[in-house]
Amino acid sequence: MAVRAAVAGASGYAGGELLRLLLTHPEVEIGALTGNSNAGQRLGALQPHLLPLADRVLEPTTADVLAGHDVVFLALPHGQSAAVAEQLGPDVLVVDMGADFRLKDAADWETFYGSPHAGTWPYGLPELPGARAALEGSKRIAVPGCYPTAVSLALFPAYAASLAEPEAVIVAASGTSGAGKAAKPHLLGSEVMGSMSPYGVGGGHRHTPEMIQNLGAVAGEAVTVSFTPTLAPMPRGILATCTAKARPGVTAESVRAAYEKAFADEPFVHLLPEGQWPATASVYGSNAVQVQVAHDAAAGRIIAISAIDNLAKGTAGGAVQSMNLALGLDETTGLTTIGVAP
Amino acid sequence: MAVRAAVAGASGYAGGELLRLLLTHPEVEIGALTGNSNAGQRLGALQPHLLPLADRVLEPTTADVLAGHDVVFLALPHGQSAAVAEQLGPDVLVVDMGADFRLKDAADWETFYGSPHAGTWPYGLPELPGARAALEGSKRIAVPGCYPTAVSLALFPAYAASLAEPEAVIVAASGTSGAGKAAKPHLLGSEVMGSMSPYGVGGGHRHTPEMIQNLGAVAGEAVTVSFTPTLAPMPRGILATCTAKARPGVTAESVRAAYEKAFADEPFVHLLPEGQWPATASVYGSNAVQVQVAHDAAAGRIIAISAIDNLAKGTAGGAVQSMNLALGLDETTGLTTIGVAP
Amino acid sequence: MAVRAAVAGASGYAGGELLRLLLTHPEVEIGALTGNSNAGQRLGALQPHLLPLADRVLEPTTADVLAGHDVVFLALPHGQSAAVAEQLGPDVLVVDMGADFRLKDAADWETFYGSPHAGTWPYGLPELPGARAALEGSKRIAVPGCYPTAVSLALFPAYAASLAEPEAVIVAASGTSGAGKAAKPHLLGSEVMGSMSPYGVGGGHRHTPEMIQNLGAVAGEAVTVSFTPTLAPMPRGILATCTAKARPGVTAESVRAAYEKAFADEPFVHLLPEGQWPATASVYGSNAVQVQVAHDAAAGRIIAISAIDNLAKGTAGGAVQSMNLALGLDETTGLTTIGVAP
Amino acid sequence: MAVRAAVAGASGYAGGELLRLLLTHPEVEIGALTGNSNAGQRLGALQPHLLPLADRVLEPTTADVLAGHDVVFLALPHGQSAAVAEQLGPDVLVVDMGADFRLKDAADWETFYGSPHAGTWPYGLPELPGARAALEGSKRIAVPGCYPTAVSLALFPAYAASLAEPEAVIVAASGTSGAGKAAKPHLLGSEVMGSMSPYGVGGGHRHTPEMIQNLGAVAGEAVTVSFTPTLAPMPRGILATCTAKARPGVTAESVRAAYEKAFADEPFVHLLPEGQWPATASVYGSNAVQVQVAHDAAAGRIIAISAIDNLAKGTAGGAVQSMNLALGLDETTGLTTIGVAP
Repeated sequence: MAVRAAVAGASGYAGGELLRLLLTHPEVEIGALTGNSNAGQRLGALQPHLLPLADRVLEPTTADVLAGHDVVFLALPHGQSAAVAEQLGPDVLVVDMGADFRLKDAADWETFYGSPHAGTWPYGLPELPGARAALEGSKRIAVPGCYPTAVSLALFPAYAASLAEPEAVIVAASGTSGAGKAAKPHLLGSEVMGSMSPYGVGGGHRHTPEMIQNLGAVAGEAVTVSFTPTLAPMPRGILATCTAKARPGVTAESVRAAYEKAFADEPFVHLLPEGQWPATASVYGSNAVQVQVAHDAAAGRIIAISAIDNLAKGTAGGAVQSMNLALGLDETTGLTTIGVAP
Repeated sequence: MAVRAAVAGASGYAGGELLRLLLTHPEVEIGALTGNSNAGQRLGALQPHLLPLADRVLEPTTADVLAGHDVVFLALPHGQSAAVAEQLGPDVLVVDMGADFRLKDAADWETFYGSPHAGTWPYGLPELPGARAALEGSKRIAVPGCYPTAVSLALFPAYAASLAEPEAVIVAASGTSGAGKAAKPHLLGSEVMGSMSPYGVGGGHRHTPEMIQNLGAVAGEAVTVSFTPTLAPMPRGILATCTAKARPGVTAESVRAAYEKAFADEPFVHLLPEGQWPATASVYGSNAVQVQVAHDAAAGRIIAISAIDNLAKGTAGGAVQSMNLALGLDETTGLTTIGVAP
Repeated sequence: MAVRAAVAGASGYAGGELLRLLLTHPEVEIGALTGNSNAGQRLGALQPHLLPLADRVLEPTTADVLAGHDVVFLALPHGQSAAVAEQLGPDVLVVDMGADFRLKDAADWETFYGSPHAGTWPYGLPELPGARAALEGSKRIAVPGCYPTAVSLALFPAYAASLAEPEAVIVAASGTSGAGKAAKPHLLGSEVMGSMSPYGVGGGHRHTPEMIQNLGAVAGEAVTVSFTPTLAPMPRGILATCTAKARPGVTAESVRAAYEKAFADEPFVHLLPEGQWPATASVYGSNAVQVQVAHDAAAGRIIAISAIDNLAKGTAGGAVQSMNLALGLDETTGLTTIGVAP
Repeated sequence: MAVRAAVAGASGYAGGELLRLLLTHPEVEIGALTGNSNAGQRLGALQPHLLPLADRVLEPTTADVLAGHDVVFLALPHGQSAAVAEQLGPDVLVVDMGADFRLKDAADWETFYGSPHAGTWPYGLPELPGARAALEGSKRIAVPGCYPTAVSLALFPAYAASLAEPEAVIVAASGTSGAGKAAKPHLLGSEVMGSMSPYGVGGGHRHTPEMIQNLGAVAGEAVTVSFTPTLAPMPRGILATCTAKARPGVTAESVRAAYEKAFADEPFVHLLPEGQWPATASVYGSNAVQVQVAHDAAAGRIIAISAIDNLAKGTAGGAVQSMNLALGLDETTGLTTIGVAP
């Protein structure tokens, strides 16, 4: 009995990656595909890498088109998910790949997104303490942002084990697909190749409150986050360098032990052997997360670094992983830990 | 009943890509993995993207280690396959990913490789006329070179339909993985990023006689090939621009018809709709081939262009496809036409 | 006595590169800078690499603004140069970096550009036979297209020495800046990094008639050109692989001799020593042209390959070189043959 | 009266960049060029972008060859400079581009480099408080490391104005040329394109003590540095994201004022207008430094970000700038603030 899935927003990068994964998911049958400005176009022209779907034509994003599916994925611009979700009924599993339902604090939402808060749904990062149980059987899922995925996975073990002071300093590099498919001059190949540049510096990035929420929940106290995202000359991947001051008495051994414990049973998070460091190329196209951690005794800090594929584990892979849990499937169904490299 | 496969040369790019594909092949169980200079090392250090094999340790490439498998893949430097193959016995399926058994003409081999000719095995490009039948049930397979794969698929329909004069002019761009994993100064990232450069110009590339052999067999007459390979700043992919003078009476319609006919039943070769052109990104990590063809009436030439992933369809994917045929499996088992993009 | 220069279209890639060169030109003083949609903006926001001009503000492109300069460079969209040039008066040196005045044949213009032909100006490729003399003292200059620059320099010696049949087959790879700074989805970094793709295949590229014009003039007979441009994952550079059937009796020596003769006194064209091949990285940011040529006896063809920087020698450098000639300055003033590498 | 300069280590990236700059330096005449393994080779084969020097042949690095020059630049592996410098005599200006004479603390040297400390020379970062005076007229110069250049310039104004706590957290991305020209597998184009990865994490990078030395001297107290370098898929450039906890009472205005004051008279350091952020592409090939700074009130931190070209301002440009001061020339002679972009 196949799960019938619709994808709203099938022409963008998140939607395309989701379709790439659903095409090989053994329990899913791909139903309606919708777009807005692209409705009526062949998918082969918009997503030429998805050959098996080349002749599918995008439909408009309406309740009628999305009706009659077991799962509806929403890969829409921020702020549009709530209206669509309302029309889908409580029995349909709705997986929102936008930001609308990630934050618990309405004031945070309004500060960072400038619109009324739509609500809070179970958070699709199963590796966080308590998150997996909330996803099992749920009919609504808020897929985390790509940066919060990379950062939360890198740092939560340090906070869960009370090893780190509640002031995190994070610098992350992202591939350009994280900025989406809308054509903007600063995202042209001519501009990004050969260049690294920061953006949203000083607390302005919308993913910051999500990190604060995740790390604070694990730490059991408020955690401040200094987050600097940078744009890297590559299509995919996030490398997140996350540091925090070590609490008194912390040692390299206690840090290592905390991370080994946190990820011992996780199918997708791979704590690398000592001496080896994450590389985004190693997780290209996969749902795997590479993590490594060090204790810098001279500087008195813990440095935890993660590498993910922003479109896979950071978006569409995380969405499928959470869907699996919501549907009662094995969490790893249709997902891989094998990257495409070199 | 799983097919047990060994891979000799598991630390290189071809071996790594092969393992990536075999890991998700439903009928294959991965057996011995060997290397030479890397024997004794963890695969996790050499191929960090292959997480499920991270703890496997490379063994030396010996007959003992390779014994007891149903299939042995040889991803060895040119000239080393014959000696290994001899020791494996006639009942083992041996798939040579090197050049040793590709050429029929011993003189050509000696001219281009400077050593005695080892022999000729069934040629692992099933889409060529007659090739599929020769592979079915075979115990020996010579996997084509990456450039000959891209070029032969782009041009053979024109020769099969007698549309083109027997003088092909080909310029192809390859990603750097085609040059292998041995560290050479001109392949450093600092050198290749931002740069395009040719090599092996004027007939010197070892893949030239293989193209001549393939196209000549289809044309039924000798075909000359002017082949210029260029190194492109990307890890993977071949874009082959292949042109030949059109025979009298050739039209855009007759060209299109010939290509539609040639690929009508091919599971991996996708003739793009008119107006759309191949892009290597679209076949990244997949076994698909994108082909498009045009007739330039003013210049009197046919221009056929193909895009492949040099490591996938161009090497390891072609090897698996041929293995499937040799073992009597469905030709597409364990292979995909879905690329990883963007 | 400084030459006062205005630049119309200072916000694009051609205009920016021109300003980069003019800033260090010892005889030029930079006057008015204009843009259309960008008028009123600081240049520092649009061209952040041009620090010395960061506080200059773009003015609208009007006759008033452009009045009172010795030289006016037009880096405008095709079709807009004639109207502007008319208003500038006959004593002002007008250097058109667009296509409007390159073609001699009005029918060719109308076929490829779809608008009335504006006229023909002296052609700014001094290395072509006869071109230098026409530029000296001229008040109007049509700067060649980037592809025609690379292709004409690679092939004209073969035609000048009657070594090649009049059917040229050309495949060229260009960096993305050749496509300009207008934001289009297929030029996003996410799309172009890791990908090679062709465009304008089969004679459709607007630079084709310009190549036919140049090569035919040198050959003294009509030359057909099969031209396939491809987009390469790099910001700058053109690598042009140009081949033609060798005439009877041609040898490697006669080919080499013809090229040595053609470029013996050229300050910017560097015929590489035998065995070394052009690379676009070597001419990054410079006005140099690297050329190498081979005779493939087996295929009976001459293969000439050139590398240029499409924005420098291919556009703005060629413009400055021609301006120097028109003004009676040393041709190399303000230009360099030193590339920025790696 | 030209300054005659020799370059020991002319075949590497630092040596090549230095020659690129010296070729256009109006007061310098290029003398002997030496290499070790490459002695006897044409420079045109090793540095094909330096066309004017293509026919120069590398000599061995001996005292005899280096004798008779006004300036000798040493671009040698760490640990080799002292022996060469000793033989050159006290009247020759020796500019060491290696690490040998950068550190003041012998114990630090021995910890990080594992050999006896050779001594301490005037430090070639004129923008640091007090550094310029020490360079004027000096006969010995230690050129800073590339990362310490980027980091020290980004952070020293905050410490000079007592705005920041003495615990700096730094994450920097470097282009691959920073790792040199020696062929190593992890630096292959196939490995680095499309990938970001850290290295030397947890205090292990040899540039860390140099940052501690620089920032501590400005702060007037010990400063700890948590430094994480990452390798980015680009040939050149460093983007350094440098943060420190803000002292009580610090405001966005006080931070901005401190940075404006620090760089008001600096010819190469450009504090960007508010709202604009550094990009490595903007300083490609130039000696300019782009700096921007923010105060994150919520996280209580100062975030200062700089972009440099690691080979130019980070190595060879800094060397020339310091040489100018030592020789009594204008500090900016032969250097540019104009980047090559896109």
